Amino acid sequence: MTVHPFDEAIELEPVGESGVLRGRTRPDWANMVGPFGGMTAAVMLRAVEVQPERIGEPVSLTVNFAAPVADGPFDIAVKTVRTNRTNQHWLVELWQDGVLTTNATAVFGLRRDTWSDTEHAVPTVPAPDAIDETGLPDMIVWARNYEMRYVEGAAPGVGAEPEPSSVTTLWARDRRGRALDFPSLAAMSDIFYPRVFLRRGAMSPAGTISLTTYFHADSRALGVVGGDFVLARARANRFTRGYFDQSAELWSSTGELLVTTHQLAYFKA
Amino acid sequence: MTVHPFDEAIELEPVGESGVLRGRTRPDWANMVGPFGGMTAAVMLRAVEVQPERIGEPVSLTVNFAAPVADGPFDIAVKTVRTNRTNQHWLVELWQDGVLTTNATAVFGLRRDTWSDTEHAVPTVPAPDAIDETGLPDMIVWARNYEMRYVEGAAPGVGAEPEPSSVTTLWARDRRGRALDFPSLAAMSDIFYPRVFLRRGAMSPAGTISLTTYFHADSRALGVVGGDFVLARARANRFTRGYFDQSAELWSSTGELLVTTHQLAYFKA
Repeated sequence: MTVHPFDEAIELEPVGESGVLRGRTRPDWANMVGPFGGMTAAVMLRAVEVQPERIGEPVSLTVNFAAPVADGPFDIAVKTVRTNRTNQHWLVELWQDGVLTTNATAVFGLRRDTWSDTEHAVPTVPAPDAIDETGLPDMIVWARNYEMRYVEGAAPGVGAEPEPSSVTTLWARDRRGRALDFPSLAAMSDIFYPRVFLRRGAMSPAGTISLTTYFHADSRALGVVGGDFVLARARANRFTRGYFDQSAELWSSTGELLVTTHQLAYFKA
Repeated sequence: MTVHPFDEAIELEPVGESGVLRGRTRPDWANMVGPFGGMTAAVMLRAVEVQPERIGEPVSLTVNFAAPVADGPFDIAVKTVRTNRTNQHWLVELWQDGVLTTNATAVFGLRRDTWSDTEHAVPTVPAPDAIDETGLPDMIVWARNYEMRYVEGAAPGVGAEPEPSSVTTLWARDRRGRALDFPSLAAMSDIFYPRVFLRRGAMSPAGTISLTTYFHADSRALGVVGGDFVLARARANRFTRGYFDQSAELWSSTGELLVTTHQLAYFKA
């Protein structure tokens, strides 16, 4: 049986009795330098999911990219910050060779039925089968794991012009049909290339510094999505003096808002 | 000379040689239970600002409200996670009586001139002097520190009906004319009452779990604002099964986007 590349990349092994979990970066999820940041977010969320005392499902995750993650093994240390009656706060650190490269805070919670409403409107877009599959440039290795169909705002090609809007909207799904779960949803929250590329019409140095994801979907909602397409939309609010922000949403094909996600990135341009 | 209540509330004293900083909650900043969450965010940011090895200005702050902060003294422990050439990652913990009530991650950075653009459009609203001053219900003590003029979405009063929109837009400024700085900007990022009150037309149990603020303004921009009004707008995207998110922006009166800020809150309704 072949292990799916995503499951391989979030595989964690306990290191003795220390509570530390060991994983390793996988070539399938390489970015230009080091691994895809979304995969780093996924593995940190996974490290909490597997804790025996974990209660509930993820509701909030913030991942800070403090230093580059090198290709190779890494250790993840997970600490319960606080356990409340209906939620639990976690601190997660990813270490390589004595360097803390990435830290994260996560909140997991028990859900209960309440008044509910989705106020944000789902974008009106063509169905995935009405759009050609493209993707990101071939050197972005991790992107090959996804089938991507861009409604608007595809990555700028050679000779592209600056665009007045930073909005990208795409349908995306796991190329091999792996069913959505919380780690893969965390990874897809970082599926967008840097907004500055679109505005400037060219690639330039840029990278996420801090990534926050709010999970609106519960496991029942993820079960409904399965391996189906997710509609993903991102935009920037402001680019200034070396930094820009991005806000994004992921929707199911039936119009359920699964995630809202925000990030701050550095850029040179 | 009278110390401004905000400066009093962010006052921190070193505890011996431990690196720990001691502060205390102030009655002027009380919420229904415990202190105003925005003030907790402000004091945690302040704890980083005063570190001698701190470089640059805040670009990102995430504060997790793990347990209630009690009225009285607290200790803040600050740790450098990583110092890079142009940015620095911090971990901040607020402790009371051996309980970690609040933790935060912050990124400070040096800014440099780059291509810049504000893509998000500033709302078109009446000037502050065209709007009556109201505020929040009197039992919300901290709110008295601000002069608030609601353009739309004021807090629901007795007999209010549910509203179809969670948008609140208001002009706000420090009532005593204190000039804006990063801690006060962090506090104002949490100036909105819970969106669920507006949608349901009534107050109900709700509270912020995690609050993330991205600082677009540098100190030069804050200097231009001084004690002037800030335009603040918030909205929720989805309310479901006990949790909702909020996204908000703060603008200067001259239309500069100072902050984008996001939070996840729990609610009962």
